[in-house]
Amino acid sequence: MTQRGRFITLEGGEGAGKSTQVRALAQALKDRDIDVLVTREPGGSEGAEKIRELLLSGAEDRWTARAEALLFAAARADHYERTIEPALQAGRWVLCDRFLDSSLAYQGGAGELGIEQVRAINAFAVDDGFPDRTLVLALAEGGARARARDNENSDRIGGRSEQYHQKVDLAFRLIAAEEPERVRIVDASGTPGEVTRRLMEALRDLLQ
Amino acid sequence: MTQRGRFITLEGGEGAGKSTQVRALAQALKDRDIDVLVTREPGGSEGAEKIRELLLSGAEDRWTARAEALLFAAARADHYERTIEPALQAGRWVLCDRFLDSSLAYQGGAGELGIEQVRAINAFAVDDGFPDRTLVLALAEGGARARARDNENSDRIGGRSEQYHQKVDLAFRLIAAEEPERVRIVDASGTPGEVTRRLMEALRDLLQ
Repeated sequence: MTQRGRFITLEGGEGAGKSTQVRALAQALKDRDIDVLVTREPGGSEGAEKIRELLLSGAEDRWTARAEALLFAAARADHYERTIEPALQAGRWVLCDRFLDSSLAYQGGAGELGIEQVRAINAFAVDDGFPDRTLVLALAEGGARARARDNENSDRIGGRSEQYHQKVDLAFRLIAAEEPERVRIVDASGTPGEVTRRLMEALRDLLQ
Repeated sequence: MTQRGRFITLEGGEGAGKSTQVRALAQALKDRDIDVLVTREPGGSEGAEKIRELLLSGAEDRWTARAEALLFAAARADHYERTIEPALQAGRWVLCDRFLDSSLAYQGGAGELGIEQVRAINAFAVDDGFPDRTLVLALAEGGARARARDNENSDRIGGRSEQYHQKVDLAFRLIAAEEPERVRIVDASGTPGEVTRRLMEALRDLLQ
């Protein structure tokens, strides 16, 4: 019987270098002869991409907070069941760029809904298929936003206020404190290579 | 201060004459000088209509059960917050053709998810804004399906098996047994006028 793969998610506020690190971490795992599927949220399956189109376009107030949280959860349900779970069952590792902790931090912690309510609808979405490890890239306060301001690639959510993004950072730290086994905060300062080494270190128990 | 309006929903399996009764009940309420907003699910607001397009097209297995339930809940959240709640606050009555009990019966009772899980995500969607009264049109077993077979207007969900629709009917009866104050089963047999009178009778306490 094939051994089930590991499910790793990478999280972090705007400007923490997450996209770079997704690629670098995938390569570092491949260098250890691990078969890795790299995917991302929102999106990652045909249905989820359709929902992503609804979510990432339009005016700031296009969706109410509750509708937005449920749309992210719907996209995640499709992505998980159609893409992630089959890969894990086939023995592949899955590395996902953002997953349900983004909803907990953005819609739950920084938004008006609260982390617990958003956790409940997301646990339903993935039928309790939480990641084996969630790595949260974090910079000392101010650093991430400074990087993000230099980044032209801003969308409907990236364009929100400084205060909003500070609340996102705090929410990620709160989630990590609540689930220390699953969720690890990783220092995103230094060179990309230094950060990748820290990420691999935070996976050490899963790599044995 | 304006007195808050009443929120009435009409439910029932395929072929119970629901569309006819929505129009007739709205007219009967208007005849009593009640200002009624008639709306429907899925849909009923701009965002919800977009989600409706995703839900009602494509192959039978386009969406997983969890994604489908979350999409219905997302559409409902938008519809409730943007259309229904403002009308109720303005003192209007709202008559909605299908609402969250359709999700409880179809995705919860007849599908694989169970009523309680689907109720939880829908309570989140509408922030506990359940209807004041839910009227379920029901025919003796077999009657509704016979009517529905004569109806060409079948979509992705209407086209499912006989057994599925029997489970939907049973789920509506279970929900009514669990919430007898809110949910009433109304006999859909006889002439349209007779059915409308029964519906009005089931609203008598709210009309005083």
